Amino acid sequence: MSSNVIERTKKKIFPQDSSARELAKARLDQLAVPPWALGDLMDLGIELAGMTANIKPPVARKTVVVMAGDHGITKSGVSKFPAEVTPQMVYNFINGGAGINALAKQAGADVHVVDMGVNADLRKLAEEGKIINKKVGLGTNNFLEGPAMSRAMAVRAVESGIEIGEKLSERYDLFGTGDMGIGNTTPSAAIGSVVTGKSVAEMTGRGTGLDDEQLVKKISIIEQGIEVNKPNKRDGLDILSKVGGFEIGGIAGLILGAAANRKPVLVDGFISTAGALIAYVIEPFVRDYLIFSHRSVEPGHRYMQEHLGCKKPLLDLNLRLGEGTGAALAMNIVEASVAVLTEVATFQEASVAGADK
Amino acid sequence: MSSNVIERTKKKIFPQDSSARELAKARLDQLAVPPWALGDLMDLGIELAGMTANIKPPVARKTVVVMAGDHGITKSGVSKFPAEVTPQMVYNFINGGAGINALAKQAGADVHVVDMGVNADLRKLAEEGKIINKKVGLGTNNFLEGPAMSRAMAVRAVESGIEIGEKLSERYDLFGTGDMGIGNTTPSAAIGSVVTGKSVAEMTGRGTGLDDEQLVKKISIIEQGIEVNKPNKRDGLDILSKVGGFEIGGIAGLILGAAANRKPVLVDGFISTAGALIAYVIEPFVRDYLIFSHRSVEPGHRYMQEHLGCKKPLLDLNLRLGEGTGAALAMNIVEASVAVLTEVATFQEASVAGADK
Repeated sequence: MSSNVIERTKKKIFPQDSSARELAKARLDQLAVPPWALGDLMDLGIELAGMTANIKPPVARKTVVVMAGDHGITKSGVSKFPAEVTPQMVYNFINGGAGINALAKQAGADVHVVDMGVNADLRKLAEEGKIINKKVGLGTNNFLEGPAMSRAMAVRAVESGIEIGEKLSERYDLFGTGDMGIGNTTPSAAIGSVVTGKSVAEMTGRGTGLDDEQLVKKISIIEQGIEVNKPNKRDGLDILSKVGGFEIGGIAGLILGAAANRKPVLVDGFISTAGALIAYVIEPFVRDYLIFSHRSVEPGHRYMQEHLGCKKPLLDLNLRLGEGTGAALAMNIVEASVAVLTEVATFQEASVAGADK
Repeated sequence: MSSNVIERTKKKIFPQDSSARELAKARLDQLAVPPWALGDLMDLGIELAGMTANIKPPVARKTVVVMAGDHGITKSGVSKFPAEVTPQMVYNFINGGAGINALAKQAGADVHVVDMGVNADLRKLAEEGKIINKKVGLGTNNFLEGPAMSRAMAVRAVESGIEIGEKLSERYDLFGTGDMGIGNTTPSAAIGSVVTGKSVAEMTGRGTGLDDEQLVKKISIIEQGIEVNKPNKRDGLDILSKVGGFEIGGIAGLILGAAANRKPVLVDGFISTAGALIAYVIEPFVRDYLIFSHRSVEPGHRYMQEHLGCKKPLLDLNLRLGEGTGAALAMNIVEASVAVLTEVATFQEASVAGADK
C-alpha cells in the first residue's frame, strides 16, 4: 500500500540551503569573539540557517507536540506502570500539571496534545478543543502475536502526523516532539534495533524503572516480537506496523510534515528518536531538519542518535521522562544560537581589534 | 592585612538549609513521573531549595555581572589579542553588541559591567551610569616581576565584589558571573594550579587561540610567575595578589556577597571558576551557593570544577568566550528546575496511578 500524502510530502523535503549556511558561517567568523568561541551555538546557527534558508532563522513561535498512544505489548508486562496511566496523563497535560507543561511554559512554547491511539474514549476532550483527535485505534495489538497494527493503520498514523506538521507550520517556527504511552520504550527499542542493526540487548533499557529480571524479560519479548514479525529494515511503514506504535508513527509524520515546511524539529528522547528513525527510513533528507535535544538515560538512545548522524546532543541531564521535556528545555539553546547569529556585533561593527595573525 | 568587610561577610555565609532540601526532595519524589525521571533538573531543584532556604526558590530576577580588568602579564605575550581589546569590549557591552548581551537578553537577565581595573579611563561611562566603577588600578603588574598587585589592592578588589553582591542582592534572585580581560586565562591557570595542586601544564590551555609554541611559552611564564611569587595556597588574598587579576578578585567578592545573601550563583567558565576558587579558599562554605553552568574548552576547567565538588556542569557546548555567556545560557535550566519543583503535579494531585511496587 502506498500513500499519496506521504509521497507528496517526501517530494517537498530538500537538503539544507547551502548558500544560507555559507552566509551564516561568514557572519559567525567575523563576530567580535575569538574564533568559534561560542562553539556548539555557532554550529547550530549554521544548521538553523540551512534548515530555514534564512540567515535570520525564525524560531520565536514554538510548540511541543505530544503524541499519545497505547501499546498491546503492555499485556506482556514490560512496564512498571499500568496502561491506564496513558489517558490519565493526557488529562494531566490538559490540566497543565505535567513536566512538559512546566518546561514548555518556561521556554515560551505552546503544547499540543494529540490522541494518536489512546485506549480510552477522549472524544469529549477533542470536541472541547483541548486535544487533537487523530485516533487510529484503541492501542496497538501485542506484537508478540502478530503485527502491532495493519499497514493501513501505519499509513494513517504517519499521514496524521504529517497533517499536524503541515497545519502547525502555519503558526509555528520551531517544533519539539513529545510522546506519552505506557510501554512505549519497548516498541522504540524494537525499532532502534531493526533500523540501526544493534542487538536488542544493546538497545533496551529499564524504561520507567524495571529491575534486572524484568529487563531480561523485556529484551526477550522484543527479540521474539522481531522474530515473529520480521520487519523490513528498508521500509519505515513496515517497521512501524510490525513493532511500532501509533504515537511513534505520529511523531514520524510530524517530522516529515515539519521538514517539508523547512521547520527545525527538536527531537526529544528515546521514543521521539524512534519516530525520527521511522521518518528517516521513509525519507533520509529529514535528517537535515533534526536537532537532537538531549541524551536520554536509556542506553540505546546513543546508537539511535549516532545512526542519525548526531555525535553529541545539546543537553545531557539524565532525563528519561519523554513528553517532549528535553525538546522544550533545548528550545532556549536554539533561541540562544539564533541570538548569537543575529545580534552579536562583528569586529568591524564593534570597533574591536582582531587577533594577531 | 585583614579586612573587616571580608570577615563580616564570611560570618554571614551558612551551609544550605537542610530542611528546605528535605522538603524539596519529598515533593520531587511524589511528582507524577517515573522515579527521578527529570534527573539533573531534580538534583538542581534540591540545591536551589537549600541555597535559598525556600521550597519555591525565587530565581526570576536575574543578572550577569561582567567584571573587567587588564593584566600586566600581557606584556610577556600570552594572548593573541592586544590589551586594548579590554576597554573596546567594555564599550561593546554597553552598546549591546557582545555575546553576553545576546545571551543575557535571551535568558531575561540584566547585564552589569564593572570596571575592576581596565587600563583606560572609563570614568565618563561610570558617570553616565553605564558601568559600575570599582577600579583598583590601571591593570595589574606583570607577575613575572613580582606580585600582580599589593595585598591591599587584593583586599579592595574582593571588597568591591562583595559590595556589588550585597547591593545587587536587593534587586536580583539569581547571579551569573562574567569576565573580560585580555590575558586573563593566564592568571586563572596560575590560580587553578596553586589551589588544586595540578601542574601548570595540566591547567593551561590555548586561551583565545595560541599555537603549540605559544602554549609552551605560556606554561613556562606561569611556572616562573608561581616560582617568583610563591603564593600561599591557604590564603586566597595572597594567591590573588601574587598571580591574580582585579576582575578575578571582583568575581570572588561577588560570590562571597551573593552567598552571604543566600543567592544562587551560576559560575561561568575558566576565569569565573578561578574567581570561585579564590572565594572558596577565603570561605569554603561558598561552595554551597555555586552552580556550575558549563565546561569550558580550556582543559584545566575540569580540575577547577572537580576541586569545587562539581562532577558534571549543566552544559557542555564547547564554549570558551567568557563574559558570562555560559552562565546566562544556564539560567534557563535553573528556571526550568524551579518550574519542575513548583509547577509539576504529584501523582495524587493529578490522579495518576503510580508504579507497581
